[in-house]
Amino acid sequence: MSMPLIIRQTIALFLFSFVAPGVKAENGYDLWMRYNKVTDNNLLLHYKKQLTSLAVPGTSATLQAAKRELENGLYGLLNTRIPIKQSISANTSFIAGTSVASPVISKEELGKLGSDGFIIKNYTGILTITANNDIGVLYGVFHFLKLLQTGKKIDSLNIISIPKLQLRLLNHWDNLNNTVERGYAGGSILNWHKLPGYIDKRYIDYARANASIGINGAVLNNVNSNAAVLTPAYLQKVKALANVFRVYGLKVYLSARFSAPIEIGGLTTADPLDATVQQWWKQKATEIYSIIPDFGGFLVKANSEGQPGPQDYQRTHADGANMLAEAVAPYNGIVIWRAFVYAAENPVDRHKQAYDDFVPLDGKFRPNVLVQVKNGAIDFMPREPFHPIFGAMPNTALMMEFQITQEYTGQSTSLVYLAPLYKEVLNSDTYSKGKGSTVARIIDGSTDNHTLTGMAGVSNIGSDINWCGHPFAQANWYAFGRLCWDYDLSSENIAEEWIRMTLTNNMNAVQKVRDMMLASREVLVTYMNPLGLHHIMGTGHHYGPAPWVKELKRPEWNPVYYHKADSTGIGFNRTVSGSNAIAQYAAAAQTQWKDMNTCDEKLLLWFHHVPWNHTMKNGQTLWNELCHQYYDGADKVKQMQQTWNSLQQSIDAEQLNVVAQLLKIQHEEAVWWRNACLLYFQTFSKQPIPATLEQPDKTLEYYKRLQFPFAPGN
Amino acid sequence: MSMPLIIRQTIALFLFSFVAPGVKAENGYDLWMRYNKVTDNNLLLHYKKQLTSLAVPGTSATLQAAKRELENGLYGLLNTRIPIKQSISANTSFIAGTSVASPVISKEELGKLGSDGFIIKNYTGILTITANNDIGVLYGVFHFLKLLQTGKKIDSLNIISIPKLQLRLLNHWDNLNNTVERGYAGGSILNWHKLPGYIDKRYIDYARANASIGINGAVLNNVNSNAAVLTPAYLQKVKALANVFRVYGLKVYLSARFSAPIEIGGLTTADPLDATVQQWWKQKATEIYSIIPDFGGFLVKANSEGQPGPQDYQRTHADGANMLAEAVAPYNGIVIWRAFVYAAENPVDRHKQAYDDFVPLDGKFRPNVLVQVKNGAIDFMPREPFHPIFGAMPNTALMMEFQITQEYTGQSTSLVYLAPLYKEVLNSDTYSKGKGSTVARIIDGSTDNHTLTGMAGVSNIGSDINWCGHPFAQANWYAFGRLCWDYDLSSENIAEEWIRMTLTNNMNAVQKVRDMMLASREVLVTYMNPLGLHHIMGTGHHYGPAPWVKELKRPEWNPVYYHKADSTGIGFNRTVSGSNAIAQYAAAAQTQWKDMNTCDEKLLLWFHHVPWNHTMKNGQTLWNELCHQYYDGADKVKQMQQTWNSLQQSIDAEQLNVVAQLLKIQHEEAVWWRNACLLYFQTFSKQPIPATLEQPDKTLEYYKRLQFPFAPGN
Repeated sequence: MSMPLIIRQTIALFLFSFVAPGVKAENGYDLWMRYNKVTDNNLLLHYKKQLTSLAVPGTSATLQAAKRELENGLYGLLNTRIPIKQSISANTSFIAGTSVASPVISKEELGKLGSDGFIIKNYTGILTITANNDIGVLYGVFHFLKLLQTGKKIDSLNIISIPKLQLRLLNHWDNLNNTVERGYAGGSILNWHKLPGYIDKRYIDYARANASIGINGAVLNNVNSNAAVLTPAYLQKVKALANVFRVYGLKVYLSARFSAPIEIGGLTTADPLDATVQQWWKQKATEIYSIIPDFGGFLVKANSEGQPGPQDYQRTHADGANMLAEAVAPYNGIVIWRAFVYAAENPVDRHKQAYDDFVPLDGKFRPNVLVQVKNGAIDFMPREPFHPIFGAMPNTALMMEFQITQEYTGQSTSLVYLAPLYKEVLNSDTYSKGKGSTVARIIDGSTDNHTLTGMAGVSNIGSDINWCGHPFAQANWYAFGRLCWDYDLSSENIAEEWIRMTLTNNMNAVQKVRDMMLASREVLVTYMNPLGLHHIMGTGHHYGPAPWVKELKRPEWNPVYYHKADSTGIGFNRTVSGSNAIAQYAAAAQTQWKDMNTCDEKLLLWFHHVPWNHTMKNGQTLWNELCHQYYDGADKVKQMQQTWNSLQQSIDAEQLNVVAQLLKIQHEEAVWWRNACLLYFQTFSKQPIPATLEQPDKTLEYYKRLQFPFAPGN
Repeated sequence: MSMPLIIRQTIALFLFSFVAPGVKAENGYDLWMRYNKVTDNNLLLHYKKQLTSLAVPGTSATLQAAKRELENGLYGLLNTRIPIKQSISANTSFIAGTSVASPVISKEELGKLGSDGFIIKNYTGILTITANNDIGVLYGVFHFLKLLQTGKKIDSLNIISIPKLQLRLLNHWDNLNNTVERGYAGGSILNWHKLPGYIDKRYIDYARANASIGINGAVLNNVNSNAAVLTPAYLQKVKALANVFRVYGLKVYLSARFSAPIEIGGLTTADPLDATVQQWWKQKATEIYSIIPDFGGFLVKANSEGQPGPQDYQRTHADGANMLAEAVAPYNGIVIWRAFVYAAENPVDRHKQAYDDFVPLDGKFRPNVLVQVKNGAIDFMPREPFHPIFGAMPNTALMMEFQITQEYTGQSTSLVYLAPLYKEVLNSDTYSKGKGSTVARIIDGSTDNHTLTGMAGVSNIGSDINWCGHPFAQANWYAFGRLCWDYDLSSENIAEEWIRMTLTNNMNAVQKVRDMMLASREVLVTYMNPLGLHHIMGTGHHYGPAPWVKELKRPEWNPVYYHKADSTGIGFNRTVSGSNAIAQYAAAAQTQWKDMNTCDEKLLLWFHHVPWNHTMKNGQTLWNELCHQYYDGADKVKQMQQTWNSLQQSIDAEQLNVVAQLLKIQHEEAVWWRNACLLYFQTFSKQPIPATLEQPDKTLEYYKRLQFPFAPGN
């Protein structure tokens, strides 16, 4: 290659990537809290007319934070510095404060709000944000700023907003050495080494971002936990974080290692029925609460993927959870016990294991225990049916666990908006108490009458300047929070909010980006795991396709275990003639899947081993349909690239360039998934890829040889 | 602790850390290239008067980068958008271009400039930046912007600037898994996984920052290397980086693992005299240069701390280096071979080992080999005498290796300005060719007539938003680059430049910060390693004091090996009655150290085992002086805190807060060093800490028990 060509390429790169002088490039750090100036002049006048004299009565740290957020937000949005007073006067046109400070709201209205809800309402010309507690006021302020960020009129507001779930938590899989398991956005934002002395500004902005979407708790460390986090030195670090987060309504939780009494307590056992073990945890809880009086509680992964747990002592998960629950109960702490179990000795369909372990324990957990269940029975696949535990443990408070970090959904090189995935699960009907017993109505406690409710998302946050690696991954953090607050919000509305706050208010661009986001998860499914295929990714790092892997020690570690391709067909028979995992669902739920000929084709190969020449609903054979879906998925990424590249007038140049580069990578990865999977499955189907489709330009052997020893997040 | 107290603390934190609305907080990302508006109105007018019509003739990528930098810089500094033309016209008042484009400079002047130098000169009203090559123009543009950033007049400039060293390199100890060995600023800025498809804007800003101080090469991966970086997939990633860096005059180099022919080549040996091995490296070099035609070359750490090397095959370092040098020679590549050797089987004073291994090889290295020597014989201690190899290998091109990352100098919680350390070494006289044979004049080739010259700094750059972890650590990157260009610059001037570009132009504040920086390294030495003590830090992570460690497998891993404290005294006798390492220095150099009674007391315990009651030059006993120095060092950090906290009017609030927090931590660490070391040494001296000094409030056992399993950078 000659030098001039290199230089030409370099120039092209720079012309593309460099921003005109004087234009502030957006690096993504500000998330959806950019507060850029309102560009519509009529709206600007409308806002300025209302916001003439503002008051935020109260001196608490949380109300001061609300005041600062308003000051900064309005300064950005209106490009005018509006001083905010502490006291209400005759000409006050805007009040944000608790009900004590804003007596204009009726007791009846306030009664509905609970601890976190808020009202935004115009009363005789005064715009009022009110709540029962300071945190509700802060939530209301963020909501109000969002109205301005998204161009809404504010002269006749009448908004009552109350969260549908009580615990709205992020789970950080952050290790104490600052790596993040399944993290694709750099290292941990938590600099444990410099804590407690050094408070990174990022901690404050993290808390602000969470408060802006109603998230009210964070589990700070990986569920594959290290007991060191429970030692006195680390508890001082946790305390420093709690002090920052408390202002924004975020409680801190810790992942507790079940064997901590041995590792840091000097005991010889961690048996939950052993009195010294019970005493150790009680003392530890007392110690923690003396340092952090509002500590949230423990999250525990036990007897799963090598983690210690009560089964090591022939005790049940309930025994383990209840012991910890008893320790934190005096302090109103809770225990969140994960149902993701995955033990070496269990020979049945992995799909069935959590249900088999947990359903018999229904009703045996203490009232301050929540069992946290992943959205599906396998592991955060691009598509799974809802987890059969939902609806099957009516006497246990069940908490949802979604994955925000994109372990299996394209990591940080793919634009995949996950709200449709979350909504698909939440809207799934368990039929546990008849039609309408949706997963959402299981976890919100309404179906089985629970008051302790919650949803957890495995964080996608890291030390990258833009927090999440991929600019659009921010939308998944945002959407998760919004759906915790109100699972009835539509994916479309959440996307639109996020786009308008984060990228652009140009409505043509908003629409294009929104449509791209809404389709993106299905696009991913189509080029990665069409028709219910699952768990066919690379070993360990889970990057890229590897359906051929079959030599790992445990059967369920191998992709071949899940796709079961052979000369007759492909797919996992989980019906009565197979593993019968389908029997874990209510009969009415089974109906949609149990017959190969009527099964929802999106999950066909999840539940059935299907002959290659099976006729699909559209008349194609299974093999040809598989080919067409893989090709269609990859083609659609190409279309996403084209859409994105058409938005140069509306999107910040730096963000435009970042996403353009990532979409190009995503297309290459989509073609890789398509070619590698089809070439491999073809060795069983013995059928050609339809001639109308562009044939793979690489061999199966080429794809099998690819190695990624340093892929992130492992 | 009651809740109200917590809340009060939290409020205090927030009031301190939160920036007023509308004021852009500085997060440190912009380094010394902030280009904030000139606040002195007279200066502003002065600049605007000169800069009326600008031209940057030329279309190369480097000149385009120079043009963009000028446009952006002037837009910030002058708050006016000044368009820059490509062609010179009658009213042009400013030209930046090569000599071809700026014929006003004489050939004689140009002849002096060489490939990288530049001239900035006013000719009949036209301000001209000229060089022989595009990169010289870019260097000149950065220098010119610096004049404006630091408030200099520009109406009668006559600057000729020519670098004193040819290779001005950063060595990154970045691993392919994105961790950084001895990195204290997050992970690697290089996202190997997303390369080559994703070009992070950070790569461009990294290259800009380096170009702004004249750094012209970067070794991208750790000297503890992984051969994978030489595989085709990684070379494509390296190529993508080279394409970005080339524009800014940065060449890429790689650390080569000596055993790569085995690990990725399928050979059974890496013997440098084996023909198949030689052939493998030649083919690898051909492959690399076909992909990156201007690849810089290889850096090698061999037969040191477990790394493979030629001695594994009973060959010499010269055999190893020359084999690689032959492979890259056809492409004008170079090999940089590290002299930091540290083999298990060598029983002599570790101080002597590199000299013993390398001096006999003098004259045996090929002309395209540089031997890279650490500044001292042990390992980047807060203070060491210069390395005895300097001056002892006149027939070998020697390159300096400094450490910018603060492995032993307070990591990222300490404000330590390293220019005085670098200058102390560079100004040290080796006496190899008589008085004046300073280390600087060894490495610049003037003493022994070498043309291949260079200096390397082990990078302190990471993925933290502010690049270096501690805001003041940026000054060490800056100072290293400036000293590579001109080692005669004073620490004081470099500090002042950096402060004015990075923190403030308020001269009262500049002076206070500069004085604090200039004293800071001596302060660190005083509370950490006074009087020539060294290598008494914690094992592995090197964080904090651990002089008591004595049970590590190899003797020279243990702090006790270095301080040799016993009932009679303390210090390492390296004179003729001891290890006689002093004999590796020229006789004239030895004079300053060889007699305990006249020895430079800053290195007293480096060269002598000194009785506890030895009378120091100030009349104190050694023990009392040791106590006073430790206390004085810690007290001075307290004074740094006070100085810093007095600067609220002049420094950005966010930066002010960050440094204030870190200085507080540094003071705690200084007290820890002081107490732990004195309590330990007291077990030998059996003497009290003078009663006038505040007595330690913790026991030696307390300090010994401290553990930091997750300290960074290990």
